[in-house]
Amino acid sequence: MTADAGAGPTPAPLPAEVRVVNIGLPLFGDAVRAQGAAAVEVDWRIPAAGRPELVAALARLYGVAAERVDAANREVLRRLDGGAPALVGVAPALRVVPGMDDHTVLHCGPPLAWADFCDPLRRSVRASVVAEGWAGSPEEAERLVAAGRVRLEPANHHGAVVPMATTVGPSAPVLVVEDPQTGGRAYSGVNQGPGATAWFGRDTREAVDRLVWLRDVAAPVLEAALAATGPVALLPIMVQGLQMGDDVHMRTQAATNLFLRHLLPGLVTVDRPGLAEVARFLSGNHLFFLNLAMAAAKVVTQSAAAVPGSSVVVGMARNGTTFGIRLAGTGDTWFVAPAPPVGRALYHPGFGPESSAPDIGDSAVLELVGLGGPAAAASPAVAAFLGGTMAGAVATTEAMDRICVGRSSRFTVPLLDFRGTPLGVDARRVVELELAPSINTGILHASAGAGQVGAGVAEAPLDCFRQALLALDGRLG
Amino acid sequence: MTADAGAGPTPAPLPAEVRVVNIGLPLFGDAVRAQGAAAVEVDWRIPAAGRPELVAALARLYGVAAERVDAANREVLRRLDGGAPALVGVAPALRVVPGMDDHTVLHCGPPLAWADFCDPLRRSVRASVVAEGWAGSPEEAERLVAAGRVRLEPANHHGAVVPMATTVGPSAPVLVVEDPQTGGRAYSGVNQGPGATAWFGRDTREAVDRLVWLRDVAAPVLEAALAATGPVALLPIMVQGLQMGDDVHMRTQAATNLFLRHLLPGLVTVDRPGLAEVARFLSGNHLFFLNLAMAAAKVVTQSAAAVPGSSVVVGMARNGTTFGIRLAGTGDTWFVAPAPPVGRALYHPGFGPESSAPDIGDSAVLELVGLGGPAAAASPAVAAFLGGTMAGAVATTEAMDRICVGRSSRFTVPLLDFRGTPLGVDARRVVELELAPSINTGILHASAGAGQVGAGVAEAPLDCFRQALLALDGRLG
Repeated sequence: MTADAGAGPTPAPLPAEVRVVNIGLPLFGDAVRAQGAAAVEVDWRIPAAGRPELVAALARLYGVAAERVDAANREVLRRLDGGAPALVGVAPALRVVPGMDDHTVLHCGPPLAWADFCDPLRRSVRASVVAEGWAGSPEEAERLVAAGRVRLEPANHHGAVVPMATTVGPSAPVLVVEDPQTGGRAYSGVNQGPGATAWFGRDTREAVDRLVWLRDVAAPVLEAALAATGPVALLPIMVQGLQMGDDVHMRTQAATNLFLRHLLPGLVTVDRPGLAEVARFLSGNHLFFLNLAMAAAKVVTQSAAAVPGSSVVVGMARNGTTFGIRLAGTGDTWFVAPAPPVGRALYHPGFGPESSAPDIGDSAVLELVGLGGPAAAASPAVAAFLGGTMAGAVATTEAMDRICVGRSSRFTVPLLDFRGTPLGVDARRVVELELAPSINTGILHASAGAGQVGAGVAEAPLDCFRQALLALDGRLG
Repeated sequence: MTADAGAGPTPAPLPAEVRVVNIGLPLFGDAVRAQGAAAVEVDWRIPAAGRPELVAALARLYGVAAERVDAANREVLRRLDGGAPALVGVAPALRVVPGMDDHTVLHCGPPLAWADFCDPLRRSVRASVVAEGWAGSPEEAERLVAAGRVRLEPANHHGAVVPMATTVGPSAPVLVVEDPQTGGRAYSGVNQGPGATAWFGRDTREAVDRLVWLRDVAAPVLEAALAATGPVALLPIMVQGLQMGDDVHMRTQAATNLFLRHLLPGLVTVDRPGLAEVARFLSGNHLFFLNLAMAAAKVVTQSAAAVPGSSVVVGMARNGTTFGIRLAGTGDTWFVAPAPPVGRALYHPGFGPESSAPDIGDSAVLELVGLGGPAAAASPAVAAFLGGTMAGAVATTEAMDRICVGRSSRFTVPLLDFRGTPLGVDARRVVELELAPSINTGILHASAGAGQVGAGVAEAPLDCFRQALLALDGRLG
């Protein structure tokens, strides 16, 4: 690119026109452009930051094992892109959730010792314990749990997923979502709505009262409305939600409205006390559909999780202390790293990163089926968190494209002329490119029981993917 | 651009590089590009196709009268961009619509002699006459109307607007929309829903039954639900609808869902027969909000219509035979041309342009407040009619920008990074550029009473705007 003008033999003349393809560090390209010549950038990094054990594992997983991994990934993609989950029931957890018993509380994220529970999740457990009638106060609940009298279980170990700091005791109502094609089932709690609620990490009287009201008043009304309506197919609602500005994670307003419209004829026929209160609650809770979408995503990922040899992520959950993933090819093992802070955030007035809990909740299951982060470009509301323009949202979707094995045939992005959202996060690509999935999520207060303080976009910790990659390599080797 | 290679003095050498700005006919630019040189196109036409009387009027309205017209247009824009219409009631037309009497039927579009009514509108009038109990059959209704026993009035002459072939008799329920800031009121019928309905130009028993049911069952339930809910502010729903893929004309699904969510708590408390039927009807009618949006737009355009000297369109309506507009600056006069066919259409299977009625309904009032055509780029569903890509929808919005005096501060387009929709159609620009407003609309069968056969985008006839321009010039001259 440059000719040495000093002594010595005359250098060969440069061609009249020089065009540069710059691979990697953009500084070189900048220098070329500064001299008036054209330079095209190729975004390239040393794979896996050059760590020898990771590079070796990648070499095998992209090399001798590639055929097997790629075939498994195609099958996982097919399953993630299939299924037709429907809401079929609302029932107490004890009656329907597999492995539930009368002294268990389900919580979000990977397994964790009580001592390591973050403040908002701790408060939510206490609220559930009080709502169950096992303790008369959060303080008493704390003592009971610390004494080992309550069994704490990840919801994911029982076919369930719960958003934010939601916890579910045996009497708590759960949504029962089933794929009629496969018979596969998954569960989620009933969304607790806005305000002083346990799912936002509160353990006040009001938060406990909401849990009791959901169980004693709302759940029977919902159950009766659903009985009158029949099973509600969730996939068409999710598909249409994306055409209406939802990412179906951070924003589920369009999907909630579609669901309510569908439930309306059944709901007005319900002859139970509290119907009007329940209608007000539903009308004012634009995240009601979140839990439905999560249970639907769990049904789909469960079906994909049974495929051996795949490098695709089929579990991703956080408890506010740790962040864990599971690959289809590595069975039930969680690969865990400290839960990251939620970056690219917008905070409620008076709050900021210093008072925020780390990333929390099972809702990242949505990112595994092409919703949330992969669907950012579908949601003007989510764009507000990504620079305030649709270009920022498109960039997030396109980054997910780089680490996914395919695209959804069902979830499409109008702004990208109805292209499918990225689907099937491949741990190989995440590690190779050092590019982690983006997760659209809420933010809870770290310590004061102040509830939700903002929302933003979290980056999954790379370390989970590195561990998972090495484990998969070990299994296939 | 070319050098004569024949005999004679040597031509001056061309500069080494030639770049062309081609104004007008693109063929010239094409020829330059064919020779390998760069050419930029400027889209330019002879103003008003060079018609002397129009060019002279434009010269005055952009010249000596410009200051006055521009000032008036700014005030019209301010009014079109203001107002906060709310649904305040549902009541029989006779009780609330100004100038309504016990033998009047309101219809869409400019005034028209019965002999000139198109087939679908004729059928809708008959259905209303039967529903009122004035005749026992459509045939009897036809004779009654032909005998002059029914007064036929444009809805627009009574502060009302009705979509497609809707007609409103004295007992028919109307939506009462009021701007609490100005006290201004407008009215629309209750949307009749899908299927064999009079608003789609049918006069079957089923269509008549729907009118009777809307009056006797649905309206009292809606009235009671609204009484329990209180006035419903429509503007926030319209604003949010645009963020959720509605153009709030051809598509009102998101707005309908938002409205239903808002009405839900009141609706479940209604203790009247038929509540469940009404809930089913609302749940299955994604155009329910269309009539609400139209009445809201009518409130706003009525307030703007009172500004003298303005070249902005404040009335635009079609009856399937004629298409008429009104300018703020020319009072109550309709400028009328034959109703155009609906171009850029998608038809239901088995139908096509040959069997379609011309453009019909008062819904084009929406295009005057920044919805429908101007908002095409907000709606992936509307894009299906504009080439199937968002680029086609964006082009429609941008064409409207060229003929509008400003942009909405309230209705914004996510895809255009939340830019306001074009607002205030200026008859001067329409005539100068020969670029008519695009109207997103449904299509009815021309003759067989077959109801809706498709939807598409109509272009307003330029001749209305030419007449209006000359009349305005006459008034200001």
